[in-house]
Parts: sequence; C-alpha cells; structure tokens
Amino acid sequence: MKEIAMSPVFPRVLILGFGAFGRLIARHLRPHLRVAICDPDPVARADAGALGLSLADVAQAGDFDLVVLAVPVPALGDCLCALAPHLRPGQMVMDVCSVKQGPADLMRRILPGDVGILGTHPMFGPQSMPGDLAGGRVVLCPVRDGAGALRWRRIAAFLRRVAGLRVIVTTPDEHDRHAALTQGLTHLLARAMADFRPHPLIRTRSFDLLAEALDMVGADAPELFEAVTQGNPHLDPLRERFARLLLAPGRDVQTGA
Amino acid sequence: MKEIAMSPVFPRVLILGFGAFGRLIARHLRPHLRVAICDPDPVARADAGALGLSLADVAQAGDFDLVVLAVPVPALGDCLCALAPHLRPGQMVMDVCSVKQGPADLMRRILPGDVGILGTHPMFGPQSMPGDLAGGRVVLCPVRDGAGALRWRRIAAFLRRVAGLRVIVTTPDEHDRHAALTQGLTHLLARAMADFRPHPLIRTRSFDLLAEALDMVGADAPELFEAVTQGNPHLDPLRERFARLLLAPGRDVQTGA
Repeated sequence: MKEIAMSPVFPRVLILGFGAFGRLIARHLRPHLRVAICDPDPVARADAGALGLSLADVAQAGDFDLVVLAVPVPALGDCLCALAPHLRPGQMVMDVCSVKQGPADLMRRILPGDVGILGTHPMFGPQSMPGDLAGGRVVLCPVRDGAGALRWRRIAAFLRRVAGLRVIVTTPDEHDRHAALTQGLTHLLARAMADFRPHPLIRTRSFDLLAEALDMVGADAPELFEAVTQGNPHLDPLRERFARLLLAPGRDVQTGA
Repeated sequence: MKEIAMSPVFPRVLILGFGAFGRLIARHLRPHLRVAICDPDPVARADAGALGLSLADVAQAGDFDLVVLAVPVPALGDCLCALAPHLRPGQMVMDVCSVKQGPADLMRRILPGDVGILGTHPMFGPQSMPGDLAGGRVVLCPVRDGAGALRWRRIAAFLRRVAGLRVIVTTPDEHDRHAALTQGLTHLLARAMADFRPHPLIRTRSFDLLAEALDMVGADAPELFEAVTQGNPHLDPLRERFARLLLAPGRDVQTGA
C-alpha cells in the first residue's frame, strides 16, 4: 500500500532530467511538494544533491504520484521505454515538451494504459522567467486520467493557485497549430535575423524592440529550436505562406507544392 | 538685405507640408525658431492658424533661412519644382524622407546650385515619440552647403543640443543600405505578420514583444510603408535573402535571379 504517496495533500514528484528546465521546475516545486531527481549524468546528480534534492533511480519511479519528463524531445522515446516497466496503475506522467502532438502520441503508445497522461507546455523558460512564475502561461493538453487520486484538474489547480500561472487547456493538435506561429515561426525569424548581424546603428525604436524579442528567442537552447521547428507538423505550410507574403506584400499567392 | 533672416542666432524656418510629421516638427521648433507653414490644404492651414503658426505661400520661400520639406516621397518632385524658382542663394533645403538616395538625387537635380541641401531622416514619428524627442535618433546626409550662414553642421548642433537628438551622419547610399534592414524589412515583416491575425492565445513572452514591435510599425502611415519598401533600392535582394533563410534555416542558399 502506498498511502502516503497516494495522498492528495502532498504528492511525491519525480523529475526525470535535471537540465535547465528540470532545475527550474525543481526550484519552484520543492517548497510545496516532495521532489526527487532522476538523471544518469553524474554532474547533474551532484548538482541536485548539492541543492538538497533527493536522488532516485528510474526503477523507483513507482514510488511517486507524478513523474515529470523534463528531457529533450529527441530523448523522450528512450526515456519512456526505460520508465514504462516501473510504473504502477494510477500514476500520472507529464511531459513539458514545446510541441505536443508527437509527445502525446509517444506517451499513449509506450506507457501502460492505466497510467494517466498529461501533456504540458510551459510557455516560459529559465531565460524569460528566471524569478517568480506568476503571470506566466502554461498550456495543458490532458490526454487521459489514470485510476489514481492525482487527476489533471488537480495539477491545473496547483499550477493556477500555487504557482500563479495562467493555465490554458487545449488539445495537442490545437496547441501545435497555434505554436507553429507563435513559437516555430518566431524561432525561424530569429535565426534568419541573426544572419544580418551586426545590426546597423541606423534604426528605429520598433527595430530595437523587434531585435530584443528575437534576441530573447535566440538565447533559447539549440534543442528547443530543433524541437519547435522540426517537431511541429503545422510549421512548414506556415513558413511558406510567410515567405510568400514577405516577397509580395498585399497578395498571398497560393502556389502548388 | 535680409539681415534678420540671415542671422545665425534666430533662423526663420518654412515647413512645407503640415501633415502628421510637419506638425511634430512645428511643435518642437516653434519654441526656438520662427516657424511658418506652407500647405495648400485649407484644413491644414486652418489647423496651423489655430495653433498660432504663421502661414506662408511657396512664393515667399525666399524669405526663410531654412525650408523643410515635410511632404510624402511621391510628392517631393512636384514640391521641389514649385519651390525652386522662389529660392535665393545661400538658403538651406532639408527633406525628412525615410529613404535618402532618391530624394537627394531629386534635390540635387531640381534645386538651384547655390542652395544648400541636407537630407535628414528622423528615426521617430508621432507614434513612437509623441512627447519629448530627447534620446531619439536622426540621420543626416549632408549633400552640400550653400553660400549662406546656415550650414549643415549648425543644424546638426541644434538637433543635438536643443532637441536632445542623437545625430548620425552618413551618406544617402549608406543610409539606405542600413534602413533596408531596420526599416524596409521590418515593415515587410509587420505586413506579413498582420496576415496571421488574430494572434493565438498560446504564446511566449518573446512573441508578445515581437507582436508589440510589429504593431508599432503597422501603426505607421501607409505612405511610409510605400516609401520604405518601394523607394529603397537595397530592399529587394535583402527580402529575398531573408525569405530563403526562413525556408532553409542554417544554410543561405545563393540562387540566381
């Protein structure tokens, strides 16, 4: 019996992956929840230990109410395969990838059917919100609830009330459609604009703002660029439409593939 | 004799065109200089009169030390032709167009050889700097000084010391090369992004900043869009390079024309 672990009052959380985003989550969750870290990298383990965080092995995953997958998108499949045999009915597994359809499909395919699945996309990172999370946005894509007490609505309530986040609930497909513009295209624009450095001195206030926004995007990890540009099936038609508009403003020419 | 008009202490300024930008200039110059407005539009004349500004006809242009052409780029040629017969040796003529090579060529061609010519591009407008100009940037492209006391360096000193502007001195061609990126391309990006409205709720802080910058550009007058996109000979190769980068980030494919 796992009475304590199943307690709705004080869930136990295992964070898989102690990279930049795993660290950000750990810092914000530990005042409220019991947090342990799982990361095979010795440096990450040492860092987590130095911060007073518990360490756990993936084989202990069944001891937790919630498993947060804070790994890069390309590592997700392997991570899920390593995790799946150790899960028990009623646990909840949550990813934090910047695209949602691909990871949701992977989790549904690899995880046992009695485990709950919640896709999440925190629309902030260590760069854009180094301090308090209040006012930040997080997108939730509930895939399914498990048999346990920890259901996605309770996680939503925690993120809203305790972390002060603005919670947006949608489907993985709808998320990816929106993010193709606001994240995928934004990253492509940042990458393209970076090619024109150094930016000239002759410029307007609007250009300063534009450069500031694109610099913020450019400061994101390279893996994020790969994830949001290659992992979003809605991006390609959108970047082609944008390029056409750029070359012929005022008329959106519909060309064949 | 035009002793007073030629006085280096208190020059007389004629502003041709009382549109949004002419009004902005008039408001900032009148505490320091004697300002008159020339605009054939009865509404503009009434507005200028109501603000206590003197009115003048283009035939009186010879009475001023400095003539500021605050007209849209497409109207510049006609305006110069109407103005030229009334100028006298030693006067200074200054444009405020957002591109510099075309207007500089026009002024050199149409204005008498003994009249000074100064190309200027104030990198701000009624939208971006509705109040104080301090900290704003202005680009000066000195074409030639006339025989009079009012030389371009004196105008530069006034803009720097009295208006608090940051003065950048360059050639018309160099200006247009820089502005192709920071103004022409920025306007094209704003126009393209506007096609994707309404912007989705699912977005990052960087996207908010990006949208804010492009909204600021989009609020500019439509004539400005035409001027900076059609009047800048350096924009076309640049927009094509940007579109290529957008479609294939990481590799700038050199294609033939």
